[in-house]
Amino acid sequence: MTATDELRIEPTTYLAVVTEVLTNLGVTTEDAEIQARLLLEGDLHGHSSHGVRRLAVLVGRFRAGLITTGLGVGVDWCTPTFAAVDGRSGFGAVVAGEAVQLVTERAASTGMAFAAIRNANHVGMLAPYIERIAGGGQIGLALTTSEALVHPWGGSRAMVGTNPIGIAVPSAAEPLVLDMSTASVSMGKILDHKERGLEIPLGWAVDAAGTATTDPAAASVGAISPFGGPKGYALGVALEALVAALTGTALGTAKTGTLDVTLPSTKGDVFVALDVERLGLTGSLEPLAAYFDELRGESVDPTRPVTIPGDRSRQLRAELLEHGIPLHPKMWSEVMGLLHETREELHHA
Amino acid sequence: MTATDELRIEPTTYLAVVTEVLTNLGVTTEDAEIQARLLLEGDLHGHSSHGVRRLAVLVGRFRAGLITTGLGVGVDWCTPTFAAVDGRSGFGAVVAGEAVQLVTERAASTGMAFAAIRNANHVGMLAPYIERIAGGGQIGLALTTSEALVHPWGGSRAMVGTNPIGIAVPSAAEPLVLDMSTASVSMGKILDHKERGLEIPLGWAVDAAGTATTDPAAASVGAISPFGGPKGYALGVALEALVAALTGTALGTAKTGTLDVTLPSTKGDVFVALDVERLGLTGSLEPLAAYFDELRGESVDPTRPVTIPGDRSRQLRAELLEHGIPLHPKMWSEVMGLLHETREELHHA
Repeated sequence: MTATDELRIEPTTYLAVVTEVLTNLGVTTEDAEIQARLLLEGDLHGHSSHGVRRLAVLVGRFRAGLITTGLGVGVDWCTPTFAAVDGRSGFGAVVAGEAVQLVTERAASTGMAFAAIRNANHVGMLAPYIERIAGGGQIGLALTTSEALVHPWGGSRAMVGTNPIGIAVPSAAEPLVLDMSTASVSMGKILDHKERGLEIPLGWAVDAAGTATTDPAAASVGAISPFGGPKGYALGVALEALVAALTGTALGTAKTGTLDVTLPSTKGDVFVALDVERLGLTGSLEPLAAYFDELRGESVDPTRPVTIPGDRSRQLRAELLEHGIPLHPKMWSEVMGLLHETREELHHA
Repeated sequence: MTATDELRIEPTTYLAVVTEVLTNLGVTTEDAEIQARLLLEGDLHGHSSHGVRRLAVLVGRFRAGLITTGLGVGVDWCTPTFAAVDGRSGFGAVVAGEAVQLVTERAASTGMAFAAIRNANHVGMLAPYIERIAGGGQIGLALTTSEALVHPWGGSRAMVGTNPIGIAVPSAAEPLVLDMSTASVSMGKILDHKERGLEIPLGWAVDAAGTATTDPAAASVGAISPFGGPKGYALGVALEALVAALTGTALGTAKTGTLDVTLPSTKGDVFVALDVERLGLTGSLEPLAAYFDELRGESVDPTRPVTIPGDRSRQLRAELLEHGIPLHPKMWSEVMGLLHETREELHHA
């Protein structure tokens, strides 16, 4: 499959189709649009593993009653700056969107706010949420746990989530937006290599015996390696403990419901907003844009330029908004299949 | 130099000598004891780069008027949960200790508290501070920037600090304590290889042209590589921006005063306490100890066991408290030299 075999889907078409699939199932228009937009953002940021590829699982989970719609969220402000949010099994994008709204509004008056979410479905990419926080001039932090896909350093079994960390810091120019998994690679990428019959680089994963492997099939029944060796593992497990402590959600292999269509979602999410103006820190942001530019100017090899976290996604997003989202015809045909299937069901209901 | 050539210094001797060196210079007994204890903790945790090796620079900086004593800290609670702390050029250990006290006390009533420090000298290892927070049953977070020693990914010049991250989460058993630099290695370790005439592993550092090198001499005039490649760089630069934004301190090569004896300290530090009980999260901590034990039981090779961040330091600390701190005779002789020199000066003052 080469790039020329790919379709280019217009963002408006993408949104309309995904939204209709969800509303056909009975999802409220508001929830459907929010979830569709989040999947679009995954694909626009170049993270297809968090894009429309997730739609079939969302549909399956909604049909199974594992995702609810229109119920809103339960909010318990334990203190003026800490909200425990019950997602009521809603769509991840809907619950996380509510949480972002809560923390940004609250931080504007208190300087900071945390939302600790349980009972939400998969939130997708962290970047769109923290970009929204940074877009309002606040510092945004986001953490989420995922199903156990990563082995502890020295172990063979998948016992730790891919546990990404998101940090967005606004500047006079573009914000810095870090959205980084603590795994060396996504399981989607390993499966993609398996489908194409390609070897994976050593260091991406281990086989079932815990030995580093270049065979994607062996890796798919083994575990993903943490990025950066023992340090990446240490960071991943620390984030696992931190999120579980702040949200009261599950740990290790007890985290379910983001990849399957049979189990409730038991992972947790944390969103934080720090209001720069309210905290008297506006001046602190001023030197950032110049520092970022100084770093960008440091490239040794112009074909591998120094970038600031967020640069590449921003550039790609602009390109794809203009030229459409590249999708494998099989992928889009599955989406269209869901559209027709749900239309049929709706008309025969 | 083999381990058998090393001295073993009793912790009480270590503390008495370091404290006296500082008090001889005019440091208050309280400040001297706090700073001495922090250096001891660096050595006890096995991070000699943050141990008594730092004493000569501290002495030089105090003599140069770049470190003050007995001035306390300036505290501005911008909101009930965010304190801007002016270290008044005090010892890092003293200022950070005050900040930890502030956030732990405040978090007990508000659920959370941040201290953002400027004008403090080098805080040393983060672990002892967050261990203290976790010891009181709170979640502790710590960030600090350092002088630029790390190259951006794709660049050759040292433009980013080693920017460590500290996360401590209490559990029913021992807490998880992550204290991890975002550099692949410390400059001290590179210099140590240079002294011993040993090659360094590829990936630790680049030479002045930005090429990966195994020559510690070339590395010492080049830059340390971030851990984990582009992801480690992304995390390091995100922490650099986050700390600078929260503290109003310097960025990149403008950070000075932790390794030299001529310039003011311009880096920043952030300490956060989250009070588990006040936030109603006590139940969230209960499953942690079992999860940690489950991970520890996953070792493929018993000689390289799976550990939880903090395990190895805790074990080493217990051993060294019992058997003494291993120090190179030359290192201890330099410390004793400082002791005699400062005694002389005091008696002839």
